Amino acid sequence: MGKTTHTVALDAMGGDHGLVAAVRAAAQISLGRQTAVLLVGDRPRIEAELARSRYDAAFVAVHHAPDVVPMEASPKDALDQFPKASILVAARLVADGAADALVSAGNTGASVLACARTFRKLEGVPRTALAAVFPTETRRGEKADPFSLILDVGATLHVDADALVAFAHMGSAYASRISKNPRPRVALLSNGAEPGKGPPEFVEAHRRLSRDPNLEFIGNVEGVDLPRGTADVIVTEGFTGNVVLKMLEGISETVVDVARYAYRSKLAWRLGLFMLRGGIVQLKQLTDWQQYGGAPILGFDRPFIKAHGRSNARALANAIKVAHKAAQSGLCREIENQLSALPGDAR
Amino acid sequence: MGKTTHTVALDAMGGDHGLVAAVRAAAQISLGRQTAVLLVGDRPRIEAELARSRYDAAFVAVHHAPDVVPMEASPKDALDQFPKASILVAARLVADGAADALVSAGNTGASVLACARTFRKLEGVPRTALAAVFPTETRRGEKADPFSLILDVGATLHVDADALVAFAHMGSAYASRISKNPRPRVALLSNGAEPGKGPPEFVEAHRRLSRDPNLEFIGNVEGVDLPRGTADVIVTEGFTGNVVLKMLEGISETVVDVARYAYRSKLAWRLGLFMLRGGIVQLKQLTDWQQYGGAPILGFDRPFIKAHGRSNARALANAIKVAHKAAQSGLCREIENQLSALPGDAR
Repeated sequence: MGKTTHTVALDAMGGDHGLVAAVRAAAQISLGRQTAVLLVGDRPRIEAELARSRYDAAFVAVHHAPDVVPMEASPKDALDQFPKASILVAARLVADGAADALVSAGNTGASVLACARTFRKLEGVPRTALAAVFPTETRRGEKADPFSLILDVGATLHVDADALVAFAHMGSAYASRISKNPRPRVALLSNGAEPGKGPPEFVEAHRRLSRDPNLEFIGNVEGVDLPRGTADVIVTEGFTGNVVLKMLEGISETVVDVARYAYRSKLAWRLGLFMLRGGIVQLKQLTDWQQYGGAPILGFDRPFIKAHGRSNARALANAIKVAHKAAQSGLCREIENQLSALPGDAR
Repeated sequence: MGKTTHTVALDAMGGDHGLVAAVRAAAQISLGRQTAVLLVGDRPRIEAELARSRYDAAFVAVHHAPDVVPMEASPKDALDQFPKASILVAARLVADGAADALVSAGNTGASVLACARTFRKLEGVPRTALAAVFPTETRRGEKADPFSLILDVGATLHVDADALVAFAHMGSAYASRISKNPRPRVALLSNGAEPGKGPPEFVEAHRRLSRDPNLEFIGNVEGVDLPRGTADVIVTEGFTGNVVLKMLEGISETVVDVARYAYRSKLAWRLGLFMLRGGIVQLKQLTDWQQYGGAPILGFDRPFIKAHGRSNARALANAIKVAHKAAQSGLCREIENQLSALPGDAR
């Protein structure tokens, strides 16, 4: 493999589009000669699919792992039952340094558990967090891309102030390294804009974040601010973050349904949609965003990008690029540095 | 006033559109000769405005209350400072039986506090709740209207299982009495569909609601189900409910902004929007819904409908109709009956 490149391990067995999408993504990435991909999964099937693809052999490798964790399986049971599951083998390869970052479109719970069993949690991280990117109204001049990051959207329910402060730093580090946003605006998602709003943990986190010189903390935001893009990094507890993220998904489905209904129903509506196609780009983003990039798990010593289960080859290729950027930019080291720089009482 | 009617006390001083909208709403309602309105506020100004309106004097009365709580005032300070504030006087009139239900478009916190100081909390209600109605995809054949109710969206942060169970009953009673939905589907909003998902309080509430014969409990729903209209009544804690509700508001603003941008920008887009006008009715609901009806506060012995601060006369008239329906249908008694029928360990 190329010497100046980084290698991304790709769980080739996970996701709704399975092995074919994974191999196609790896083949496409290899042709860019920037990133090497280590495909982890059923070797004979991967090689058969590679034989049908155009790819640069110097930037693709295969590691055999015969088993797969089903999308709906209980994470713990599945990993215990299948020690050679592709996600677990891939995580071990990254932990051992055979690759620099991990990507999977498979079972989210099993992926996170595989990381927890093989990666090291960074110094100063009370809880790891699953972050997600969502589209917002474009804010020209403030930031280049119309996206914000929200965390945690994963396994935490209610968390303490330490965890919220760590989430803020992890999200800020991710936005500055990956989205190239040098000074991302960080906010707490609460039930009111005033510093005193929210559970005691939020009030305490607000107090600490307000006096943190290493963050661009803009205070509390409310639900209404999410689609506006008021903040680049939205910090909240996993219970609320998960509900909010899934709601965005539901709304995008509703928009698609309405558009599809309009398209089928009437010639005039079809013409109307055609004429509007420039104007509805922003609405379309709401419907497409799950397909692109992926959700980083933050707080481990290795980067892991969780691609959406529905990811096609294009979405997986995008997730590989993000994972490569995370490895190359030293994201994990940056997070550890930021958290260790916190004064004792601000952690 | 008419003998078979109920009387709704309307805080005439609250809301962005102030006294003029309130008087117009009362005048309009009076012409229907179904509901009497007691306008509570500055008598000379109300009478001057009434003199400019067409109304039925048998269905409108005025009670003088000179003071007003500003929209942004601290509720406690404002009520302490202005004992003759219209919202407090109006709540007292309802508590004393001079009217049967209360409507205000003013300061939400002050309204709830005024109720707490004058109304009685119903037997078996651990926490009162602010509920809100939001639009969903139409589900033909399941329910007539494309709306769901979510509670609590108000002052609670994290609540215990007792409160969640009570919210479920209060929401179900409201949906069956006001939306005429004889068997509303009730769900817990959590971070996963499985019964074990969510904080311990949610898991415990799920257990109790599952075996409750007086509710159509359909289990946990996720954020993705909200716009789909999977459930008629969505039960959650105030922190998450508030974030979710304000997010719906933000998304509707984004849709309006995009449509406005499209409308201004290009003749072809304008034509496109015109042709599409039938097809975007469902999207429009997302943008208009705050204007209609109002948010009930549930758990007191008197009905209170909080109209949106931006309510115009039409929205206030709608809130008056809802308040009248709540009084006429015996909503509060129904809630008390449902909660007192709970077995001791299921409360």
